[in-house]
Amino acid sequence: MFEWLFGRRRRAKAPVLGSRLDAIGAADRIDLSDLTPDLVSFLGQTAYLELAVFQSLGRVVAEAPNLTVKEGISVVAGEALAKHHGLVAELRKKKVDPASAMEPFTQAIDRFEVLTRGRDWYETLLGIYITAGFLDDFFARLVTGLPRTVAARVSAVLTTPGSDEVIIAALREGMATDPDLGARLALWGRRLVGDTQLVARSAIAASDSAEGIHRRIEPVFTDLLGAHSRRMDELGLTA
Amino acid sequence: MFEWLFGRRRRAKAPVLGSRLDAIGAADRIDLSDLTPDLVSFLGQTAYLELAVFQSLGRVVAEAPNLTVKEGISVVAGEALAKHHGLVAELRKKKVDPASAMEPFTQAIDRFEVLTRGRDWYETLLGIYITAGFLDDFFARLVTGLPRTVAARVSAVLTTPGSDEVIIAALREGMATDPDLGARLALWGRRLVGDTQLVARSAIAASDSAEGIHRRIEPVFTDLLGAHSRRMDELGLTA
Repeated sequence: MFEWLFGRRRRAKAPVLGSRLDAIGAADRIDLSDLTPDLVSFLGQTAYLELAVFQSLGRVVAEAPNLTVKEGISVVAGEALAKHHGLVAELRKKKVDPASAMEPFTQAIDRFEVLTRGRDWYETLLGIYITAGFLDDFFARLVTGLPRTVAARVSAVLTTPGSDEVIIAALREGMATDPDLGARLALWGRRLVGDTQLVARSAIAASDSAEGIHRRIEPVFTDLLGAHSRRMDELGLTA
Repeated sequence: MFEWLFGRRRRAKAPVLGSRLDAIGAADRIDLSDLTPDLVSFLGQTAYLELAVFQSLGRVVAEAPNLTVKEGISVVAGEALAKHHGLVAELRKKKVDPASAMEPFTQAIDRFEVLTRGRDWYETLLGIYITAGFLDDFFARLVTGLPRTVAARVSAVLTTPGSDEVIIAALREGMATDPDLGARLALWGRRLVGDTQLVARSAIAASDSAEGIHRRIEPVFTDLLGAHSRRMDELGLTA
């Protein structure tokens, strides 16, 4: 269902501008530009992903345990919405109807969104935090295959630092109140990151050279899992 | 439950900067500044109102009938959120905790929000459009009693033009498909504007000079109803 075009725009890898992964090294130098989907597919897929994240955060805002958290998470929801609108703006620049560009990706992303809904508010919040973080990083790695000027702007959109501290504070507050929550969140985080990798990988597996691609994408996943572990660490959870 | 302070800051009426009501005349010159709540109550109440509007629009985005409408309404949701954050920023400037300032108003606004939920997606969307429009206009009329520099900024926040055309297009599309929807929406709009006036009025009725205030506020309501009628007109509905 995902359209990945191969060998269309081979070129020297441009650095991912402003990526929070810049400092990681090794896998950062792997050239994935030939795995980058065509521009419209890339933008449609990421734009709908951010819209789905926004929708999920909207529910989290509506059901927040208190007004301080509600206010805080509303900022995070606004950040996801800004990413969505930033990506939609790129589609509009190309005179592409955003709805048409997003349409091919709605089913898979909606299904994934349902999967990330937890048993309670805290699990759902962790789910959004963990999966959106991983997928933003994943797509940020693929921008190198986009036309250079667009790549810089799209990278800037995807890697805009969010108000993670609000999410971390809300989850820590929940764990302080409920002694069982931490263990539950650790398990949930582990399950989610597996599912998230499958989603990212499925996008690539649709191609005809699946095996080779998997071998190349593995070190990138290892990197992204490093970022994931740091997110879990900040919550005092083992990834 | 609303705290309105009287006679605290009598002064010559400052024009409501950028109000979409500027052109209306007569009632625009009625000085309501002595009816303006104290700054923290004003900001807490309007900030929570915009947050509630955002939450409602979040649900509308999630349940939108198609992707084009979903994308369009997400812009409107972002506008409500920006208003909320603009008002919260004013509270922060005053070193006031936004949650504490909003808290006294959550119950009444939540109750009102439930009241504005319609029987279907279209009624709910009309409900948000009509009630948020009326209440933004209402509070914009009251900014004249706020300290001058704050008043200008708050007025600018409340009267920022929104993407009404997106809402109008979505509702017109619905009415084109369902021949009964128009009549239903017209009735719903009439009921809502009654309830909305009660909400606005109840804020004032808590004071000890209710009768006189009611007489002064009536011409303002007449004006706001004019703006309401124009909103309904644009939808081809009779207010």
